[in-house]
Amino acid sequence: MFITFEGLDGSGKTTQMQRLAAWLAGCGLSVVSLRQPGSTALGDRLRAVLLDSRSEAALGPISPLAEMALMFADRAQAIAEVIEPALAAGSIVLCDRFTDSTEAYQGAGRQLGSQRVLALHAAVCNNLQPDLTLLLLPPLDEALTRARRRNHRQAQAHDSRQAKALSQGKTPAQAGPADENRFERESDEFYARIHEAYRKIAARDPQRVLTIANDESGDNSIEAIERRIRALVAPRLSLDALRV
Amino acid sequence: MFITFEGLDGSGKTTQMQRLAAWLAGCGLSVVSLRQPGSTALGDRLRAVLLDSRSEAALGPISPLAEMALMFADRAQAIAEVIEPALAAGSIVLCDRFTDSTEAYQGAGRQLGSQRVLALHAAVCNNLQPDLTLLLLPPLDEALTRARRRNHRQAQAHDSRQAKALSQGKTPAQAGPADENRFERESDEFYARIHEAYRKIAARDPQRVLTIANDESGDNSIEAIERRIRALVAPRLSLDALRV
Repeated sequence: MFITFEGLDGSGKTTQMQRLAAWLAGCGLSVVSLRQPGSTALGDRLRAVLLDSRSEAALGPISPLAEMALMFADRAQAIAEVIEPALAAGSIVLCDRFTDSTEAYQGAGRQLGSQRVLALHAAVCNNLQPDLTLLLLPPLDEALTRARRRNHRQAQAHDSRQAKALSQGKTPAQAGPADENRFERESDEFYARIHEAYRKIAARDPQRVLTIANDESGDNSIEAIERRIRALVAPRLSLDALRV
Repeated sequence: MFITFEGLDGSGKTTQMQRLAAWLAGCGLSVVSLRQPGSTALGDRLRAVLLDSRSEAALGPISPLAEMALMFADRAQAIAEVIEPALAAGSIVLCDRFTDSTEAYQGAGRQLGSQRVLALHAAVCNNLQPDLTLLLLPPLDEALTRARRRNHRQAQAHDSRQAKALSQGKTPAQAGPADENRFERESDEFYARIHEAYRKIAARDPQRVLTIANDESGDNSIEAIERRIRALVAPRLSLDALRV
């Protein structure tokens, strides 16, 4: 079973994926977790290239079309090296971002269009589809607030790493990558387009994509979302969602 | 005007492109030359990634689909950063390899198929077509002999660099990349597929692709091929091919 986690930066998907992985492993299942970009030697190199395009030790800006192709190079390698072998071995594969992210961020955010992204997915990924996609989609204003708070914390941490490196006579580049979340520097319109694209993807493919929206009248804590995710995943794996 | 050079490794295209660039510049024209992969900061990084996948300090093998996507990431960046600005400024752009190479090497050589490559070219390069493609296509056996001879020379040079590095207490990786021409280690069938793919591309698009085959009864020296290329290019630029 191939399960992907999707959502805006700050939506909590990485935390929820880690919790689900731990729970599934606790149920005795073999679980393989990965993130995109990354999770292969090539993916780590490509992730570094993407980060360097954002840092002051800049590569210079990467064109949106080149960025999209890099995302798919990473994905093709992850499929060949990790996802397909793990699925063939009977493991459950959990992936933090997959092609829906490219459709939302590059297709809608950078306005390259869904058609291009889906054409690449067909040509480069043989149209591999997750069995289940968990889309964490809090209201846009809440996601923006969370993303900005995290961005601010990371910028502070980077500034202090850089000041330390400079005081030790190192170059700024040696202080490490500037910004794991370049997208968070984009405009509100950019995020609104991504949010809307995710909603459209979920509407287009309701069998595959389950949206975890905020429960207006209820509990939206990390633990409550975790329980909701377990309740969605458990029946598909013949597990008891209440099992601890 | 956008002119690409194509052909198997060892076909002489790089030499001929340099000679044509010098001649056009000598005629007073503005000429921008580039090669793929490479020729942008991103392209140089991706070229290094591709080389590292071949060296002993290995990244591990890159999947053919990931390799194809990397070629297009490089190409999209070269189009945005070099080719389109140069064409807009009225320069003649000469490019050592373009999408025909990906169709021949990845599509036919690695058997991914032409359709995938052309789908990526549409999605990532907006279907940008050269005005003219000069395809250097000596007979397959001659191209193989030349490529093997060059491969042998490069392997010797690498072995001697590596022996020197090791004698200086360096790691093998510090001796530099192993092999600029990984493809030359492939089988004869691999090259035969590429050769045939180039012939098909030329037959499909005879207006754009001009094949420089050997002249059975004539002179096939570098200088003779250079004169034939000038005679093909000159009328398209209203130049006198005999101008020195």
